[in-house]
Amino acid sequence: MNGKFVTFEGCEGSGKSTQLRLLSEYLKERGTDFILTREPGGGEISEEIRKIILNGKYTDMFDECEALLYAAARIQHLKEIIIPALNAGKLVICDRYVDSSLAYQGYARGLGAEFIKSINSYALQKYSPDVTVFLDIPPSAAFERKHGADEDDRMEQQGISFHEKVYAGYRALVAEYPRICAVDCGGTKFQTAENIKKLLISKGVID
Amino acid sequence: MNGKFVTFEGCEGSGKSTQLRLLSEYLKERGTDFILTREPGGGEISEEIRKIILNGKYTDMFDECEALLYAAARIQHLKEIIIPALNAGKLVICDRYVDSSLAYQGYARGLGAEFIKSINSYALQKYSPDVTVFLDIPPSAAFERKHGADEDDRMEQQGISFHEKVYAGYRALVAEYPRICAVDCGGTKFQTAENIKKLLISKGVID
Repeated sequence: MNGKFVTFEGCEGSGKSTQLRLLSEYLKERGTDFILTREPGGGEISEEIRKIILNGKYTDMFDECEALLYAAARIQHLKEIIIPALNAGKLVICDRYVDSSLAYQGYARGLGAEFIKSINSYALQKYSPDVTVFLDIPPSAAFERKHGADEDDRMEQQGISFHEKVYAGYRALVAEYPRICAVDCGGTKFQTAENIKKLLISKGVID
Repeated sequence: MNGKFVTFEGCEGSGKSTQLRLLSEYLKERGTDFILTREPGGGEISEEIRKIILNGKYTDMFDECEALLYAAARIQHLKEIIIPALNAGKLVICDRYVDSSLAYQGYARGLGAEFIKSINSYALQKYSPDVTVFLDIPPSAAFERKHGADEDDRMEQQGISFHEKVYAGYRALVAEYPRICAVDCGGTKFQTAENIKKLLISKGVID
């Protein structure tokens, strides 16, 4: 495994998609050999699992089921997409990874970190990211920025108090894992992009 | 939780469906308050997960993903169907449960018992069956009886050597867990049904 593994985390509306796009443009310009992928998703199987997880009509899905579906999609995505790319020496940038499960299902849903860690032990122990970029913006500000949620998405249907718990979960993870770095998102999107670039350069994952 | 929980296990072609039908007919005649359910399945969410697991075109599904999907469907099915029925004092008869994951994914796929136990800890620790009926018939005899496999089913696509490993896994489970009782299936289907009835009466789960 010669490649580097970078994950992006944040609450709904934190600007992840925008920042991933800006970083991709920067890396393309520089000719970096990288892939950009996302969770839950990747190949056809993971995408099918994603459809079940996010289907707005499944309001009676139990939290443990949701967490196990994320873990199933994750390991498929990991073995199908991420590991081969890392073995080929590429930089892998992944939109969400196991920290999302810890923040959303472990903290906010209240399943606890131990349950999430046990069902994600393979990903956590063998393929822990080199750097995790946490876009640090409180949910109230993020929601305002996004002008509301997508009502057909099970995760976005959750109220603001749920997303505040997710944010608190992320803050706890930043304190626990040195690989997770909080990035200030208080400025413009270009200032945030600059903060991310500096962070990744300082960690030695990009030039 | 006042109800009793009985699970049925066995290799492909072991006659599980036939025996479940015969037992259901017997219980209906006696007016027993019971439900018959199956894994992976139950409600709409579990059935959707089942479709992914068994879809014959997903030949590139990784074993860990398969095991996690089974665990996800199981916990949804457990909380949605089994636990409410047990709480209502019913006899619950379930076609496959966590022992299938131990035999198929743990032993035959080689993922190991520890991984399967960790992702199924909730089901194993909190809702272990009162009795598990293992239909003890070697895969060679079972295949002959069934006249071949369903080519559209991912589990049945596996060759005979896979199913022999599953059988060996079940034999190891019978040795490990006293709740799992091997039932001789060497006679006619009616003789086997009689063996099952006697077992369940001796265990106090039916009259």
